[in-house]
Amino acid sequence: MQQRPALRLKPGEERRLRAGHLWIFSNEVDTAHTPLRGFAPGEQAVVEDARGKALGCAYVNPNSLICARLVSRDAKVALDRSTLVHRLQVALAARQRLFAEPWYRLVHGEADGLPGLVIDRFGDCCVVQPNTAGIERLQAEVLEALEKVVAPAYVLWRADNAVREREGLDLRVEWLGQPGPEELEVREGGLHFRVPVVSGQKTGWFYDQQANRRRLAAYAGDARVLDAFSYAGGFAIAAAVAGAREAVAVERSAEACDRIAANAERNGVGDRVTVIEGEVNDYLAAARQEGERYDVAVVDPPAFIKRRRDRKAGERGYRTVNEAALRLLGRDGVLLSCSCSAHLPEERLSGILLAAGRHLDRSVRILERGGLPPDHPIHPAIPETDYLKALFIRAVIATSLP
Amino acid sequence: MQQRPALRLKPGEERRLRAGHLWIFSNEVDTAHTPLRGFAPGEQAVVEDARGKALGCAYVNPNSLICARLVSRDAKVALDRSTLVHRLQVALAARQRLFAEPWYRLVHGEADGLPGLVIDRFGDCCVVQPNTAGIERLQAEVLEALEKVVAPAYVLWRADNAVREREGLDLRVEWLGQPGPEELEVREGGLHFRVPVVSGQKTGWFYDQQANRRRLAAYAGDARVLDAFSYAGGFAIAAAVAGAREAVAVERSAEACDRIAANAERNGVGDRVTVIEGEVNDYLAAARQEGERYDVAVVDPPAFIKRRRDRKAGERGYRTVNEAALRLLGRDGVLLSCSCSAHLPEERLSGILLAAGRHLDRSVRILERGGLPPDHPIHPAIPETDYLKALFIRAVIATSLP
Repeated sequence: MQQRPALRLKPGEERRLRAGHLWIFSNEVDTAHTPLRGFAPGEQAVVEDARGKALGCAYVNPNSLICARLVSRDAKVALDRSTLVHRLQVALAARQRLFAEPWYRLVHGEADGLPGLVIDRFGDCCVVQPNTAGIERLQAEVLEALEKVVAPAYVLWRADNAVREREGLDLRVEWLGQPGPEELEVREGGLHFRVPVVSGQKTGWFYDQQANRRRLAAYAGDARVLDAFSYAGGFAIAAAVAGAREAVAVERSAEACDRIAANAERNGVGDRVTVIEGEVNDYLAAARQEGERYDVAVVDPPAFIKRRRDRKAGERGYRTVNEAALRLLGRDGVLLSCSCSAHLPEERLSGILLAAGRHLDRSVRILERGGLPPDHPIHPAIPETDYLKALFIRAVIATSLP
Repeated sequence: MQQRPALRLKPGEERRLRAGHLWIFSNEVDTAHTPLRGFAPGEQAVVEDARGKALGCAYVNPNSLICARLVSRDAKVALDRSTLVHRLQVALAARQRLFAEPWYRLVHGEADGLPGLVIDRFGDCCVVQPNTAGIERLQAEVLEALEKVVAPAYVLWRADNAVREREGLDLRVEWLGQPGPEELEVREGGLHFRVPVVSGQKTGWFYDQQANRRRLAAYAGDARVLDAFSYAGGFAIAAAVAGAREAVAVERSAEACDRIAANAERNGVGDRVTVIEGEVNDYLAAARQEGERYDVAVVDPPAFIKRRRDRKAGERGYRTVNEAALRLLGRDGVLLSCSCSAHLPEERLSGILLAAGRHLDRSVRILERGGLPPDHPIHPAIPETDYLKALFIRAVIATSLP
């Protein structure tokens, strides 16, 4: 067995790891004993507590605030091809049990025991997000493990997530091996979408909202539905297929707007999906002027709070857009309000909605709490794996209601 | 308009109400100015802040720690027949939009603007839980309002919830008007149950678990499923109908066991539902001895933490039963762990599961977060309305998994 260097923690700094988390911050390392600059980005090490007791194996990045991530609790088990194969098999087993077809998130980072690695599966194509130096360094092993476990026809290395900058990594996108098509099909609960995997947002599709799209159906019958920040039309088309009278998708990107229209046609609801190109806040203001009314509104913005320090401004952003959407609802409307900001706890989002409702003399009640689907498992000790909030809100105009 | 007495708060004590909550505790009242003993139990009053500014209308109970509950934010609007009719109409509208048939919780207390009042609807029968003196005093008005809005054939006044003792109320059960049958039918997502409304737990049925029973179906196919604390067989039968190889229902009450068997027959799965009469912890210990194995276990105990002071003992109870259930799972099993204790936050439950998993060398991940269905709306400012936790956990034996 290859000898791996040690990474020693300061006294007491093993607590987070013992509680189940996988991250080590640079100020927790005993750098007098094991200097971080001694490690190459992504190099693996045996993590020790201050007394030298081994806690497991981690990959290290001296350039990142999160300077190491635990990959096993057994110092003899490193993250190599064989461990990757095993972890992929464990991850795949859960998806195969719950999904009839191979369209899902196959690997959800830390929660699947693979810190920094996200893999979305689109039929015979896998889109990989290598978000850390530790994963970047294992590109060949990840590819081999994927071939062994999933045998995809195409693998896209989408190394362009902005979080890579915090790791000191470059941003790039490349096919590993045979180049695949720019657009891929997504099948989801009887719906069909085509999405751009090379140039689209994230991996090209938001599997994280699949369960919430499905639940929206219960509210959509005969309703007029707004889908703000529509991207590829997921919520609007799900609503239209579920019987919405009209679904209005608002999206800033012209290219995405064309895609929404094409996806609506593909699902046979082109006549009931209206696509509006523009900024959501502008549309909401104009719609208010024109007295537009919706029965249901979906507000699913990009993360307004990317770092803790953006929290105040981000919360204002959520308040503004949700309040503007609430204004467009009829007397007894439903708002599906989402946030994918890990830094916004659910209580804050519901507090924002309550305050917005009070401002508009609407009572606000949570009818359902959506959230991540089972292909995005949550690690109970790692709050960062539980980033998506999705509150189905009933907002009734009823001033005396307490 | 009838003149209502004032209930004056001490300086600053209006904060909880302004934040959206409806409860006033006895130590928040300026009793020098408005002595609580001046109120009859259930009498309505105008709540004022310390400066005499009216905050709304509340009903008062001098015998309860929660000495008043706000019923409107407009001092001119009391809780009378007309307000009850309006609130029932608002509550009914949401249920009718989401439920094809009249089987649901019609009124969920504070969250439907009707503090202390719970009404479950079973077709043409309404089962009412009047949990406070304020509601008890309005029996005639509640009945009239129900007749106007829902026109049920039968109304059962189940005034036997233990929380009534904290209000100084007696415990009793009575039909108002025409007596109805002891057993009622419940229809839920294609399933049929018969449940005891007069003598059964709570209102006779747990509508709060309906969405979680439905989700369990995705995990049940070809599985061996344990349903601990089965009551009328809800989870076991839902699993069997969804294709479970065998569903084992464990229940302490002999009468309930007969009912589970009959309900299983009624749904055509009598041959795949096994009923075991006994204490859950005893069964789990015996099953461990005998080497029993399950693919899926549902643990849905009664509230172990009824009051804040029971928290420690209650948490031990959750740990014991969940750990024992985890022991019976195969290498890659699913646990649906529920808690209806309002005093147990979800993070605590997931922490308990994580610790139990660690003790058994199992990685614990949350696959889905169940919770209350939309006929149990949640008031964002009243955590007590959000009492049900339901975590779908994957527990894999995998010691090196971090």
